[in-house]
Amino acid sequence: MEKKIPYKIYLSENEMPQYWYNVRADMKNKPAPLLNPKTHAPMTAEELEAVFCRELVQQELDDMNRQIPIPEEILDFYKMYRPAPLVRAYCLEKKLDTPAKIYYKFEGNNTSGSHKLNSAIAQAYYAKKQGLKGVTTETGAGQWGTALSMACSYFDLDCRVYMVKCSYEQKPFRREVMRTYGADVTPSPSETTEVGKQILAAHPGTGGSLGCAISEAVETATGTEGYRYVLGSVLNQVLLHQSVIGVETKTAMDKYGIKPDVIIGCAGGGSNLGGLISPFMGEKLRGEADYRFIAVEPASCPSLTRGRFAYDYCDTGMVCPLAKMYTLGSGFIPSANHAGGLRYHGMSSVLSQLYNDGLMEARSVTQTAVFDAAVQFARVEGILPAPESSHAIRIAIDEAMACRESGEEKTILFGLTGTGYFDMYAYEKYNNGDMSDYIPTDEDLKAGFDGLPQI
Amino acid sequence: MEKKIPYKIYLSENEMPQYWYNVRADMKNKPAPLLNPKTHAPMTAEELEAVFCRELVQQELDDMNRQIPIPEEILDFYKMYRPAPLVRAYCLEKKLDTPAKIYYKFEGNNTSGSHKLNSAIAQAYYAKKQGLKGVTTETGAGQWGTALSMACSYFDLDCRVYMVKCSYEQKPFRREVMRTYGADVTPSPSETTEVGKQILAAHPGTGGSLGCAISEAVETATGTEGYRYVLGSVLNQVLLHQSVIGVETKTAMDKYGIKPDVIIGCAGGGSNLGGLISPFMGEKLRGEADYRFIAVEPASCPSLTRGRFAYDYCDTGMVCPLAKMYTLGSGFIPSANHAGGLRYHGMSSVLSQLYNDGLMEARSVTQTAVFDAAVQFARVEGILPAPESSHAIRIAIDEAMACRESGEEKTILFGLTGTGYFDMYAYEKYNNGDMSDYIPTDEDLKAGFDGLPQI
Repeated sequence: MEKKIPYKIYLSENEMPQYWYNVRADMKNKPAPLLNPKTHAPMTAEELEAVFCRELVQQELDDMNRQIPIPEEILDFYKMYRPAPLVRAYCLEKKLDTPAKIYYKFEGNNTSGSHKLNSAIAQAYYAKKQGLKGVTTETGAGQWGTALSMACSYFDLDCRVYMVKCSYEQKPFRREVMRTYGADVTPSPSETTEVGKQILAAHPGTGGSLGCAISEAVETATGTEGYRYVLGSVLNQVLLHQSVIGVETKTAMDKYGIKPDVIIGCAGGGSNLGGLISPFMGEKLRGEADYRFIAVEPASCPSLTRGRFAYDYCDTGMVCPLAKMYTLGSGFIPSANHAGGLRYHGMSSVLSQLYNDGLMEARSVTQTAVFDAAVQFARVEGILPAPESSHAIRIAIDEAMACRESGEEKTILFGLTGTGYFDMYAYEKYNNGDMSDYIPTDEDLKAGFDGLPQI
Repeated sequence: MEKKIPYKIYLSENEMPQYWYNVRADMKNKPAPLLNPKTHAPMTAEELEAVFCRELVQQELDDMNRQIPIPEEILDFYKMYRPAPLVRAYCLEKKLDTPAKIYYKFEGNNTSGSHKLNSAIAQAYYAKKQGLKGVTTETGAGQWGTALSMACSYFDLDCRVYMVKCSYEQKPFRREVMRTYGADVTPSPSETTEVGKQILAAHPGTGGSLGCAISEAVETATGTEGYRYVLGSVLNQVLLHQSVIGVETKTAMDKYGIKPDVIIGCAGGGSNLGGLISPFMGEKLRGEADYRFIAVEPASCPSLTRGRFAYDYCDTGMVCPLAKMYTLGSGFIPSANHAGGLRYHGMSSVLSQLYNDGLMEARSVTQTAVFDAAVQFARVEGILPAPESSHAIRIAIDEAMACRESGEEKTILFGLTGTGYFDMYAYEKYNNGDMSDYIPTDEDLKAGFDGLPQI
């Protein structure tokens, strides 16, 4: 007998996850190791520790331990904004007139506005524990930078953010949120680093890029006593921290006897999707249960659906380790009309391996279709979703509509990673009918593939 | 034996309030009735129904029934974003090193970003039930307009918002949130109403004012078949709907055996404070318990602390009924350097009566002191608060610091009405050290008092 499902399932604090779930422990085909960009040999822990915090390097390399205990200090911070609600989308179901049952895990109820905080606080904690003075990072639109600023403020850690210059100027609000939390925000490229100076000399007046901001952040971290670099997605450690989403979701579903048939998440670097699916994928890998998993990416940046599974550079400056992943090439930049995030050229090695092994599906969607879904969702469920999260909404609605056709009562779960309060320029464009789509041609993608390293 | 208090107390859905609490039923001195602006006679239900929905008029006039059942359809909507968490501010207590116990009721976890949604959905529901086509309203910065847009979208009701023109142009993001929810947003003054045309003719190029936007909204409502006007604060009905905050808070506190010594809220028109304190004030009025209540208002718009308790116009156009309230005069406009809301010239008649009867205290605070508190709070509690809510934070911190001096272990409760995500211009000013204070002189206030009607 199924219990009556409330609109929102909140776990109590003592039901919150006490560990992160390391899905790599369940994988027969482990994700390929990071390679040294110069020697192409697997990166050692020692090499990685020049860039990343010590314990985070251990987590990055650990593909054996299934459960990693969450330190008490991080649990305390989680309690400020978690447990996140698992929401039954009754109103959306009614609007769609579907027999499907739709659930979403909502990660936007915090000031960073997204799931990014789950990893930011972990990375700040380990930096503090190591006795570091501060951390550096890059940010585009500013979601990750905001989360890291909040985490560093909590642990009284210095936070230096290189923000892509055009975003710094055009999206001043996220910049101000970061400054409110005490972060030092520098428009990139800047005169504060060698690589920044070089780029400014070669391209005066450039608006910057994520690749350039990464290079500046890494240079500052490695060149400043007591600093390390931190990253908000792609890495194994980030997926590990984000597994708190999946463990919490599974605990809530188990409590009410709910089993999802299909689990959907948007995918840029892969952190939220990887986190959401981890414990479910673990069951699938161990043959204990079966689920369908769908990664949803923008048609304008289709790394899984149209990319190559190959070793590639993680940054445009080619200073970071090489990762084996589905990639469009490190030189790939999405078309200028692409709104929101999910614009990374590659994909988490964990997700790439799972996809390559046929354990996960992937779909790409155009942005007007995404915003159609976003507005439809907002009007019945109340929450104004982030453009990124709305990729998952799009496919969840499509799956629910397919159930209406077939009459199947599938249970659909998707990750609602965040809110769109700082994305109103994109919504304005949509509301005015000025939003356009872009699907790169094979020819457009060729240059990126041609630039892949020969490994 | 006190139970261990979690960071956040969430009631379950079946513990949610089933009724609104009408504090007027407990008041010996009832709030004075609204008067017809022409005849100065008490407004009849019939007169009020030309402007407001029928059932809302009943609620406006009802000072006898203590509990008003919340209709099922509204409860369903409440379940999408309620129960709101009652948060124990452990991190703030630690930071302040105070023996005080600090709690806040957080109403910002919804897309409107504030408590305004509690009344918006009620007003939209009664409009729909009456078979109306739509509603009109005014909005300044846009918090109320956003809430009403969401509520109307849910009930498929037309929503026409007159937004003060300078806000419409300078704060495009809230405007776009409203449009995303399908609202029709018109910059005020506009050519769509007679009063708008008159004002434009007299003051070409004006940026508009709340008073003018109210007049346009009322004109449109009364002149359009199937439309009524709705208001986001001040009125008795709005305080009634907002009592869901207080009832939920009291239920959560009772569950854990917590009794607040002092209850603090910001006050502009009075809706959130009135809602928060209602059931507690009821106990005080009936002699069952004692609490201190503190209304906090901006030093730049000090209606309670420096206003007159008198009948006054509710709008600058003088088309709305007269209300007896603490007021600075309907011509009063806060200084241009005042950021955020809480800029209404008057105060809810209910709160005004309670204050006049010595049942509630009031304090005014300068805005730099408010932003000091906002940033201090954000950095330890995570939530970036709205400037309005931060008035309550300021006094809560002051009370907690007084406890540190005296060693008292007081329990402090305050209302955290919303988030500041759409107020980053003000935070930017603060971050840059460009924020200034303004305290009107007695001479500044004189013109407003001189304009009070002789009743």
